[in-house]
Amino acid sequence: MNGVDGRHLIGGRAVAGSGDGFQAVDPTTGQPFGPVFHDATAAEIESAGALAAAAAPSFAATSPAQRARLLRTIADGLSALGDALVTMVSAETALPAVRVQNERARTVLQLQQFAALLDDGSWVDARIDRGDPARQPQPKPDVRSMLVPLGPVAVFGASNFPLAYSVAGGDTASALAAGCPVLVKGHPAHPGSSELVGRVVMAAVAALGLPAGTFALLHGRSHESGAMLVRHPAIAAVGFTGSHQGGRALCDLAAARPQPIPVFAEMGSMNPVLVLPRALAARGAAIGEQIAASALLAMGQFCTSPGMVAWIEGAGDAALVASLASKLGAAAAGPSVHPSIRAGYERALQQVEALPVEVAARGAPGTAATALCPTLLAARASVVLQQPRLRSEIYGPAVLAVRCRDRGELSALVAAQGGHLTATVHGDGDDFGAFGDVVAMLQSKVGRLIANGVPTGVEVCAAMVHGGPWPAASDARFSAVGTTSIRRWVRPMCWQDWPRDALPLALRDDNPLRLRRMVDGRHELPAPAAN
Amino acid sequence: MNGVDGRHLIGGRAVAGSGDGFQAVDPTTGQPFGPVFHDATAAEIESAGALAAAAAPSFAATSPAQRARLLRTIADGLSALGDALVTMVSAETALPAVRVQNERARTVLQLQQFAALLDDGSWVDARIDRGDPARQPQPKPDVRSMLVPLGPVAVFGASNFPLAYSVAGGDTASALAAGCPVLVKGHPAHPGSSELVGRVVMAAVAALGLPAGTFALLHGRSHESGAMLVRHPAIAAVGFTGSHQGGRALCDLAAARPQPIPVFAEMGSMNPVLVLPRALAARGAAIGEQIAASALLAMGQFCTSPGMVAWIEGAGDAALVASLASKLGAAAAGPSVHPSIRAGYERALQQVEALPVEVAARGAPGTAATALCPTLLAARASVVLQQPRLRSEIYGPAVLAVRCRDRGELSALVAAQGGHLTATVHGDGDDFGAFGDVVAMLQSKVGRLIANGVPTGVEVCAAMVHGGPWPAASDARFSAVGTTSIRRWVRPMCWQDWPRDALPLALRDDNPLRLRRMVDGRHELPAPAAN
Repeated sequence: MNGVDGRHLIGGRAVAGSGDGFQAVDPTTGQPFGPVFHDATAAEIESAGALAAAAAPSFAATSPAQRARLLRTIADGLSALGDALVTMVSAETALPAVRVQNERARTVLQLQQFAALLDDGSWVDARIDRGDPARQPQPKPDVRSMLVPLGPVAVFGASNFPLAYSVAGGDTASALAAGCPVLVKGHPAHPGSSELVGRVVMAAVAALGLPAGTFALLHGRSHESGAMLVRHPAIAAVGFTGSHQGGRALCDLAAARPQPIPVFAEMGSMNPVLVLPRALAARGAAIGEQIAASALLAMGQFCTSPGMVAWIEGAGDAALVASLASKLGAAAAGPSVHPSIRAGYERALQQVEALPVEVAARGAPGTAATALCPTLLAARASVVLQQPRLRSEIYGPAVLAVRCRDRGELSALVAAQGGHLTATVHGDGDDFGAFGDVVAMLQSKVGRLIANGVPTGVEVCAAMVHGGPWPAASDARFSAVGTTSIRRWVRPMCWQDWPRDALPLALRDDNPLRLRRMVDGRHELPAPAAN
Repeated sequence: MNGVDGRHLIGGRAVAGSGDGFQAVDPTTGQPFGPVFHDATAAEIESAGALAAAAAPSFAATSPAQRARLLRTIADGLSALGDALVTMVSAETALPAVRVQNERARTVLQLQQFAALLDDGSWVDARIDRGDPARQPQPKPDVRSMLVPLGPVAVFGASNFPLAYSVAGGDTASALAAGCPVLVKGHPAHPGSSELVGRVVMAAVAALGLPAGTFALLHGRSHESGAMLVRHPAIAAVGFTGSHQGGRALCDLAAARPQPIPVFAEMGSMNPVLVLPRALAARGAAIGEQIAASALLAMGQFCTSPGMVAWIEGAGDAALVASLASKLGAAAAGPSVHPSIRAGYERALQQVEALPVEVAARGAPGTAATALCPTLLAARASVVLQQPRLRSEIYGPAVLAVRCRDRGELSALVAAQGGHLTATVHGDGDDFGAFGDVVAMLQSKVGRLIANGVPTGVEVCAAMVHGGPWPAASDARFSAVGTTSIRRWVRPMCWQDWPRDALPLALRDDNPLRLRRMVDGRHELPAPAAN
């Protein structure tokens, strides 16, 4: 592979690994190819951790402008990789070139958005409560606060987003923007892509003269490599995108440390779709087509793939099921990003098909060694209510169609849900009003509600929330997408009666960074620029 | 006791307990008195949890104005208790009446500040990214987000703040403001005070016609009562103020749940004070007096009590130590809030005095059965660096004076610190500049830096941060004091292409609540009111 030789990137250098070896796999053939990568060893993780700890104070002290330049340099570097990156990602994941190009564009956009956030600067939530030495019975102190970085962040990339949720993806971009060094545990499904991107980040760190410990890429297929990273005392927080099992394991490890650290794990979900009666009657067939198309995107390898659709039996339901069955049944199986995904999908289908569930449609078998076969499953709500397995994710292009006998059963189905990233409601006329209680309950289970659309497609914008109650994410108070995701990696810090010239610039009286601030409890905008 | 009969408060009613009994203790005599309270049983916790789960959706749907009225009604109720409350709290905790009056004033202020936050409304961080159906290659969805309540919160009151961090204290006020039902596990050191205040909250909930499950008070001395509460599936988050041991136990329980939940535990700290050379030379004696006075407040029973003072040996250090010794040695032992506090203090002193530490001064023995005796300990930095026990809190009026040989040893001492709520730096002239690296390292260990003051006294204002890295608090990303503490109990929620008339008021186009919002990535202030 061009520019890739299977090294870890530690301390600004490519370092030959010494742990157990593994290779990338061509998902269309199932055959390994390319250089041998190695599970990061204890010594390699110790080296990267110590360097990150040493880099943390000076990286935290960089100016917002410096960090914005770092992010833009990385973005430019990703673009400059051109077709080499697209070819590499496609070879390792079987994702089509156009999808990879779009994902790179999104990755670049994320980096640019965080650079713009740093340019604006006001995200630090600067607050000033001025003192009053004359206050009785006690003088009022001068108290000022702003957000500061937590320290080194361990990032675990996702298999299904080799760029946007990987080495230079959203977690890395937000952590670097916050001023936290980043140690990436590369996903073993795309190690070459990880190394290519990692070299871009490493070069950007060097080009800006930042400490070499600001960034590291550690490869690893073994759980132990990841566990050692989470246990390293230098690590202050963890970002993870992946399976429920993996996320839970990291949460447990982090909670058991002598000093527990926060983990933001985005673990995916079923993303239920409710089709309310008037919408069902008016456009059952069209809704079925929409849902099927959404479920077939990237062969269901999205955290937001619609895994369940539910409705109350009545006019339009036959058309809904028929269109789901026709569209999913007509689709050909396509490759997954890695053989492990196919194995997990087959295992989940076996579990589910052993329950009182009908296989209503199955797509054409594919030729790829790792192919996932689109599947429509159908069950009565009474069965789903009895079987917890039917209420948890099947990662891949499977949709469970759930027929409810009546409104009470739909309500019970919603009440029985765990957390999801999203829920979608199709409603026409007075549907939303008539089912307000059901929608309110649905809201308590999700991070995002979508009306008359599909859950796939996560707009990268200030108002987006990509997270939700457990098990969709490990902490519903944060989002993995959008500029608010920076809050995962920062903490408020307060200075009391501090010498004016030793205060951070964001908190000085003359507001040299021109930030929106809260002063004496009131929001203040900066005065217009003089020039 | 007037108006107190040892009941739990569940579902809007006083309920006779059935678990093991216990009584309040008079700290001056060590004798139990008053009605018998009971450890909350599994059935009582199940009842309160189920009611809270049932109340959560309708309480979440209350208007900000309704919740503001609830908080103000509670505040008024606390004031209306008059001397009865002061007498009760003093009897149970031996805190002097004036301290109890001040603490009630602070508790009332906290409730009023959250009511004002609700009046203003903008804390919900409303964000609107407007859609663009014409965008290529895909239409841009309309995406809107705001903060919504997490669900029922379990609050564990503190022994040392029977009002401000107890039944209607900061955790309860912030959670109710957020729209979360609150289940308080009352601290067994002041059960009568808890019941008095709990009855005020219960009456306010009833007076406003809110669901009875919005609030419960459960008594308990056993760890098992608290553990059952944290494990209850209805509980969405935990607020705790207390010991490191207790906080860690609750964190571990919460992390081990089938659905882990966030815990904010404020566990206190040593709050180191550094005296830099010019300040030491100029005002060593005065600084020693300040620190001693701070350590003697409430007999050291503050999370922010100064437990360590460190300096580089040189001019002024003899005066610093002499004034610390004289002031602490001249103070009489005073009662703690509960016999368990004295037992813990004595145990900690025994551990520490077994190490190479000098007892430099000891106050006069007190008459109270639970008296804590002021103690000045002295040790070389080299010893403190070797002995982790010397770097962790002794809860009570003990100060460890640490003499550093040189700047390198001071720097090493700071580097060896765990997390603290605060650190204080005394510096004159160019001290802050000359020790910039030491102060920067100190900053990474604390939530609040104080210049030339004392750590006790937590101003309740928008910029205050009361929290810090582990073990000062369980999650440094949040504060227990100030209006930002509401963020512990809320999560962002997003609506995509949602019907305009089904959106929350905060997110409607015409901004009927007149909030500051972020629209298309830009901050917007509401238009001036028409009337």
